[in-house]
Amino acid sequence: MHPFTDRREDSVAALGETTLLDRIREWLGEAAPPSPHGMGDDTAVLPRPEANLITTDSLVWGRHFDDAVSPGAAGAKLLKRNLSDIAAMGGRPREAVMAGFLPPETAISWLEAFTRGLAACATRFNVPIVGGDLTETDGFLGFNLTLLGHAPNPLLRAGAAIGDTLWVTGVLGGSRASHQHAFTPRIAEGLWLAQRGPAEIRALIDVTDGLAKDLPAILTADSTAVLHLDRLPASDDARAAAGKSGNSLLQHLLTDGEDYELLFALAAGVDSEVFHEAWQESQTTPLTCIGQIVPRKADAPLIDAATQTPLSSGSGYEHFAAP
Amino acid sequence: MHPFTDRREDSVAALGETTLLDRIREWLGEAAPPSPHGMGDDTAVLPRPEANLITTDSLVWGRHFDDAVSPGAAGAKLLKRNLSDIAAMGGRPREAVMAGFLPPETAISWLEAFTRGLAACATRFNVPIVGGDLTETDGFLGFNLTLLGHAPNPLLRAGAAIGDTLWVTGVLGGSRASHQHAFTPRIAEGLWLAQRGPAEIRALIDVTDGLAKDLPAILTADSTAVLHLDRLPASDDARAAAGKSGNSLLQHLLTDGEDYELLFALAAGVDSEVFHEAWQESQTTPLTCIGQIVPRKADAPLIDAATQTPLSSGSGYEHFAAP
Repeated sequence: MHPFTDRREDSVAALGETTLLDRIREWLGEAAPPSPHGMGDDTAVLPRPEANLITTDSLVWGRHFDDAVSPGAAGAKLLKRNLSDIAAMGGRPREAVMAGFLPPETAISWLEAFTRGLAACATRFNVPIVGGDLTETDGFLGFNLTLLGHAPNPLLRAGAAIGDTLWVTGVLGGSRASHQHAFTPRIAEGLWLAQRGPAEIRALIDVTDGLAKDLPAILTADSTAVLHLDRLPASDDARAAAGKSGNSLLQHLLTDGEDYELLFALAAGVDSEVFHEAWQESQTTPLTCIGQIVPRKADAPLIDAATQTPLSSGSGYEHFAAP
Repeated sequence: MHPFTDRREDSVAALGETTLLDRIREWLGEAAPPSPHGMGDDTAVLPRPEANLITTDSLVWGRHFDDAVSPGAAGAKLLKRNLSDIAAMGGRPREAVMAGFLPPETAISWLEAFTRGLAACATRFNVPIVGGDLTETDGFLGFNLTLLGHAPNPLLRAGAAIGDTLWVTGVLGGSRASHQHAFTPRIAEGLWLAQRGPAEIRALIDVTDGLAKDLPAILTADSTAVLHLDRLPASDDARAAAGKSGNSLLQHLLTDGEDYELLFALAAGVDSEVFHEAWQESQTTPLTCIGQIVPRKADAPLIDAATQTPLSSGSGYEHFAAP
């Protein structure tokens, strides 16, 4: 479904701003609470003002999604990217506000499907969409969403220490080629980890740019992660991507990005087997121990456990191409 | 100062995402708190999690600002638009997150000046910039900012009743032609009104689209605002604009938009003179009583007190041109 139309009567330009805002609230349905707890006043008034987490993320046509993605899946993804950040703090999502940048030729039907996809995801994760902003553009189509969350004991990126074991939820790789819009944010898993507390879960991050880029973000400068490459949990999509791309499966697992899985460091003193059993008793998402943090080796952040050599796969996906 | 450059070495594309983020944090200076209370983790962790207001607004190159505006003034305006919304709830601003949509040819020096202008305004109003997001675009330059705030007793748009008097801060009109980037958000004035409480200040809004559009937003369907047109506080810019445009001064006062002044309904039982004196004792911003709410007259939201005829000036500024 294409977002733009040549028929003015089918475009947002035919509605005018006031009607367009009314429609968006209608499409959001139960995901949009009534004023003053939602849209309609100068700001939204939050009934539970104890959120301590805030994050923001954007979604741009032609860059993060295109005709190959249903508008509903794109709308859901706008929220899910932010949900993954809240999950990576061990938090529970709260309210969200959305900003849209729309050219006048945006098709009403496309925007409705996008908004309904967002609303369904918001309802599923109990996220009221309490405010927003619309701006007309000369062709650019993009969205931004800011999400609040709450975590009594947030799990930060910093805190991992030598001896800690490294764990990842779900499977890695191939996302960009296939399932990058169909992922499930690991909110439930993050809440489970937060209940274990920062003394056990010493560092937590979500894998968005690829393990090779995101794992070093939780390491101190005097440490190295030793990875058991044969244990990295590969998605079927990663295997399919490796078959097509000519790159190795390992390359896909380490650098594909958009996995939206959780990666964490488990304190050295915690029994891995007992921990894994407790996880399996309450969670259905797979959990894999992929390595351990050791004193800095070979002056590299990541080394292969089998060969003890640095991983040369380089960084994950990076915008604004480096020099 | 133009935002784009042909010299790649002067553009954000020369930096790469990680360096660009580092620079932005450097330019924000004291406005950007250290992690985990600012950028650097999956979300920001707010040290004072009691904000109950949230609002979001955007600023787009070629639409809300252009070469005629210094980048620093544009950066400040991104925040000030949101501050005006918090003021219109009688709230105190808290933390903010910013999203940037940048083409690779964006000049580093322009972005620095924009960010430093934002930071100076953030410091002035004690708003920590705690998070953000950057997205590369194919030419579109725009920003979004989401601002938290707190008001123990927020002043809503709804609540004005027949008999209430209508008041406006500052002066109106001519803003779009001249001072739309130089306004001061009425935070202090809003806090003063909030202290009087919702029993006295029965409805509050900021004038962003012009009095003719924003005033009806605080009226019930069974009421009309009788305006003393000769008392409307005109800015020098409004007089200058009227001289140039060929439109009447009144037209400019009612529909220019971007005044960012506060408009409120004072409960009928409150003595206007005593109230005005109390205002003048603590505030330096002018305050003018411009009319009163009466039972619905002439089936119009606004009527001229002198002639008792409806004001036909129509609506204020509206995006997404109506049908």
